[in-house]
Amino acid sequence: MKNIAVILSGSGVFDGSEIYESVLTFLRLEHNGVRYQCFAPDIEQMHVINHLTGEVAEGEKRNVLVEAARLARGEIKDLAEANPDEFDALIIPGGFGAAKNLSDFAVSGPECRINDEVVRVARAIHQAGKPVGLICIAPAMTPKLLGAGIQCTIGTDEGVAGAINAMGGQHRNCPVDQIVIDEQHQVITTPAYMLAGSISEAAAGINRLVDEVVKRA
Amino acid sequence: MKNIAVILSGSGVFDGSEIYESVLTFLRLEHNGVRYQCFAPDIEQMHVINHLTGEVAEGEKRNVLVEAARLARGEIKDLAEANPDEFDALIIPGGFGAAKNLSDFAVSGPECRINDEVVRVARAIHQAGKPVGLICIAPAMTPKLLGAGIQCTIGTDEGVAGAINAMGGQHRNCPVDQIVIDEQHQVITTPAYMLAGSISEAAAGINRLVDEVVKRA
Repeated sequence: MKNIAVILSGSGVFDGSEIYESVLTFLRLEHNGVRYQCFAPDIEQMHVINHLTGEVAEGEKRNVLVEAARLARGEIKDLAEANPDEFDALIIPGGFGAAKNLSDFAVSGPECRINDEVVRVARAIHQAGKPVGLICIAPAMTPKLLGAGIQCTIGTDEGVAGAINAMGGQHRNCPVDQIVIDEQHQVITTPAYMLAGSISEAAAGINRLVDEVVKRA
Repeated sequence: MKNIAVILSGSGVFDGSEIYESVLTFLRLEHNGVRYQCFAPDIEQMHVINHLTGEVAEGEKRNVLVEAARLARGEIKDLAEANPDEFDALIIPGGFGAAKNLSDFAVSGPECRINDEVVRVARAIHQAGKPVGLICIAPAMTPKLLGAGIQCTIGTDEGVAGAINAMGGQHRNCPVDQIVIDEQHQVITTPAYMLAGSISEAAAGINRLVDEVVKRA
């Protein structure tokens, strides 16, 4: 049975993994009859956002792995324990956690750095020729995570698209229900909540992405 | 357009709303073409559970409304602001938050008390003859929330079923992909993660429940 690694970045759109995108990913992986294993880095979140007010919860600290465990009902492992050889593909859902915890793209833009464990696991899976699926804002990591010259999408946001191109990526505009496939590099991306106005809109693109990743795994 | 109220109890299976059950509910409500509005009580959680270890996070405090806002991408209101007249039905997803925050069933069993605002909103919707859907452990509130003599299910757990009957309820055993409908009282319940071994198993029952609630709304 195919085995897919999923890297989470917390639990909540503004400071972690986007919850709907993550659950839709799990649901579609199950629908495809494959196994999956969630991972997250054992690090402190960049910050905690009060999702009711949208403001930073001053003084509050949360751990990415511990919060991501909420999204996985406890079925999650420290990313440091991940052996890339055991997996046939990788998917990273969106949410600002991808740009705040897995990387610092949200504050550093094209000068961003990516968490060492995320680089280790994603690059090994990618360099073995296995497919990598990135959702929402997570594709902003593509050039620095997987290498220059790879086509990807975050939808139509000109600022983020420009930053991707500035890092050596090849951004392609894409509607919410579609995906961008880089056939040569086996990288599949979709805008999800960079454009979605509803869960079902996000689901349309995410289902396509998961199906493509699984097909190529 | 039909308008459905959803009451959340936090974000995370062990101390709040079960995330998958909640997202599946939202997705199916959208699929049915109805509007919905999330609410949660503005109260402190009974406690915070570290979902990685399963242990209580000693000294940590979180607010039910603030955490539930993660599950609703910020689109949530204080339950105290809910006007039951504006809604055609009510759904309460499961997760231990229903038994720890919306009520204290987890610690008090048949002697449990239910949050005043939950009682106000749920009882008004129920007494207006509108359907109420309760998922997973939330049906344990049925007798005290909506009245004695109402058929409901939490699956097959003998302890919880006995407590429901002790409060004057009428528990019915039910498999994970099915629902129990009390036709007279317009109450629909499903076991979800009281029995589910996967998201798709939970989805089977939840989709049926949402469809029935919407049909009767």
